[in-house]
Amino acid sequence: MDILNQLEWRYATKRFDRDKKLNEQQLDRLIDAVNLAPSSYGIQPFELFIVEDAKIREELKVAANGQPQVEEASHVFVFAVNKALSEKHIEAYIERTARQRGVTVESLSAFRTTMVSSVMAKAPEVRFQWAARQAYIALGVLLATAATENIDACPMEGFKNAEFDKILNLEKKGLASVVMATVGFRSEADKYASLVKVRKSKSELITRI
Amino acid sequence: MDILNQLEWRYATKRFDRDKKLNEQQLDRLIDAVNLAPSSYGIQPFELFIVEDAKIREELKVAANGQPQVEEASHVFVFAVNKALSEKHIEAYIERTARQRGVTVESLSAFRTTMVSSVMAKAPEVRFQWAARQAYIALGVLLATAATENIDACPMEGFKNAEFDKILNLEKKGLASVVMATVGFRSEADKYASLVKVRKSKSELITRI
Repeated sequence: MDILNQLEWRYATKRFDRDKKLNEQQLDRLIDAVNLAPSSYGIQPFELFIVEDAKIREELKVAANGQPQVEEASHVFVFAVNKALSEKHIEAYIERTARQRGVTVESLSAFRTTMVSSVMAKAPEVRFQWAARQAYIALGVLLATAATENIDACPMEGFKNAEFDKILNLEKKGLASVVMATVGFRSEADKYASLVKVRKSKSELITRI
Repeated sequence: MDILNQLEWRYATKRFDRDKKLNEQQLDRLIDAVNLAPSSYGIQPFELFIVEDAKIREELKVAANGQPQVEEASHVFVFAVNKALSEKHIEAYIERTARQRGVTVESLSAFRTTMVSSVMAKAPEVRFQWAARQAYIALGVLLATAATENIDACPMEGFKNAEFDKILNLEKKGLASVVMATVGFRSEADKYASLVKVRKSKSELITRI
């Protein structure tokens, strides 16, 4: 498997084959990829909602301007970010670190202090944007992983976030949807599959210094 | 090569081996990965600055609070986003699309109109954040690709953006630095290499519906 060939193979899939579903192992691998994705400090300021239920997907589709992927794909992955990341989340992260590394919470207190002062110094809107960016790193890792597994995907921003939040009941968890990826297998009828991928030339993209 | 094993293998490398440099083929593959990364509409609202020059790196290091990666890594990849994405950029993208797909610019006029009205409807700050998020998808794809190629990397946000912009002369190109990744090969002295990766449990990360 060559990852560049796979990145070339992938495209923003518009029409999925309704009859082809990811099996649990495939799904697990994509979940693992999202969970392994790097984030600032490793704090992972987001949750992932994986929607399979047909009725909920119908509602999400309406809130996504009727885009067929939401209904036709095997699964819908919605990234939801902590709306107001607070000391409480940092505390949970410090406890997770202590537990997983087999050290005491006390031994992490200098790290905790640095982290709290740096994260909480950001204005709330800046903090939210920063959290959203971390979710986008995970989205990139998810899309690269799906490609290497020959799983199709479509990253999608074109939906009414507030309506998604309502349908998925995110508000009460303090979360806000920022982006989604529909995943599954391309339909033979998807005319977008054969379009040439449009990309910058190297000289438009890169400056070497 | 199993991508999950590689994502497990990678970590935010703090100390690089100064003597180990990426060869041109390795560098090319990372550049290709960034260029192949998906972005909204495929517009790629960013450029990539790849810094090798020792003197410039010394300056960048100062603006990055002295973090040693900036100097010790093989290369520094700085993602710089279009500060004020405008119709001019959309125009260039439409022309690129026409050229690469062998169609006329006129045949893309409906697409162009949709894109202009959607992108330009965003308030300037929202448009900038949206552009930055696209760069973060590419960062995620870069980090996943580097991992699969056994190349170490450290994503880094902790630097003074305005100083980076000055050092790299981004202002006159209408660009603003948003994030960087230092890439190369880990030093045997990096004590962070052996730390357990801290991640959410599946139940903390995932909700299935």
